[in-house]
Amino acid sequence: MGLFSKDIKTLDDLFVHTLQDIYYAEQQITKALPQMISKATDPQLKQAFETHLRETEQQIKMVEQVFRQHGHEPKGVTCPAIDGIIDEAQEIIGEVEDKDVLDAAMLASAQAVEHYEITRYGTLVAWAKQLGRPDCATILHQILEQEKATDQKLNMIAEGKVNTKAA
Amino acid sequence: MGLFSKDIKTLDDLFVHTLQDIYYAEQQITKALPQMISKATDPQLKQAFETHLRETEQQIKMVEQVFRQHGHEPKGVTCPAIDGIIDEAQEIIGEVEDKDVLDAAMLASAQAVEHYEITRYGTLVAWAKQLGRPDCATILHQILEQEKATDQKLNMIAEGKVNTKAA
Repeated sequence: MGLFSKDIKTLDDLFVHTLQDIYYAEQQITKALPQMISKATDPQLKQAFETHLRETEQQIKMVEQVFRQHGHEPKGVTCPAIDGIIDEAQEIIGEVEDKDVLDAAMLASAQAVEHYEITRYGTLVAWAKQLGRPDCATILHQILEQEKATDQKLNMIAEGKVNTKAA
Repeated sequence: MGLFSKDIKTLDDLFVHTLQDIYYAEQQITKALPQMISKATDPQLKQAFETHLRETEQQIKMVEQVFRQHGHEPKGVTCPAIDGIIDEAQEIIGEVEDKDVLDAAMLASAQAVEHYEITRYGTLVAWAKQLGRPDCATILHQILEQEKATDQKLNMIAEGKVNTKAA
């Protein structure tokens, strides 16, 4: 999108733009997760990251389906939000030496990513319904529920184990 | 924090770093909200932004209290995540002309900010408890509940009115 041009004229344009934003975000997440998988020490955390990588790859295909159902070719636009969240995660990963503290830090970073996805998919579901696209809303809602489940799983791993080991 | 140095050695260091991160984030939010207040058209949305600005100013003081209780002077560290989320909001604001679509876009951006805060305060509450600081956890939990309430309020404004007007 061109800065300072007024390219978004309707809610439909905004919906497509936000879909492009999350499409880019999901791709950046698939690039960031392998490093987190390789650096995770706790086996349950490592496995949660691995599962999330496979899920993210699947979600990219689901977002592509939403694009096509809505008459658009899948396309990403740079999403400064996810870039910032991932930059921050990588910065923290570079600053922690202790393996257990690193697990706690990476887990928190992964939850920040999840919450970004939760808010965007929540918005996309609402807009899809408003635009009379229950077919798109259904797929986006499925992804939203997966993201919420991942966040809950990370919560359980944090409170059940990782934070205790880090303290 | 110096990049490539290993400055975070313990969960306590990580807690303080994340407190510095959210302290910076809250300050950036108080700088971004006035523009959103001035550009909001829906009176309920404008009022929600105004309330959130006052609440954020209060939350900055609460975070300062947590710093002091934990024996640290309040200090911020650049938080690439919130910078990215706010950059993205401002980019979108620059691209939307229609007032009702702009309201829907700004509301979604505000929810992205809320979710970042929700995830960080959630983490900080868990770490404060783990570190044996229930006094800090209590204050952080109060802020967390305020952020969740703001997100819920924005949801109601979106689904009750703003999205309909934008469509």
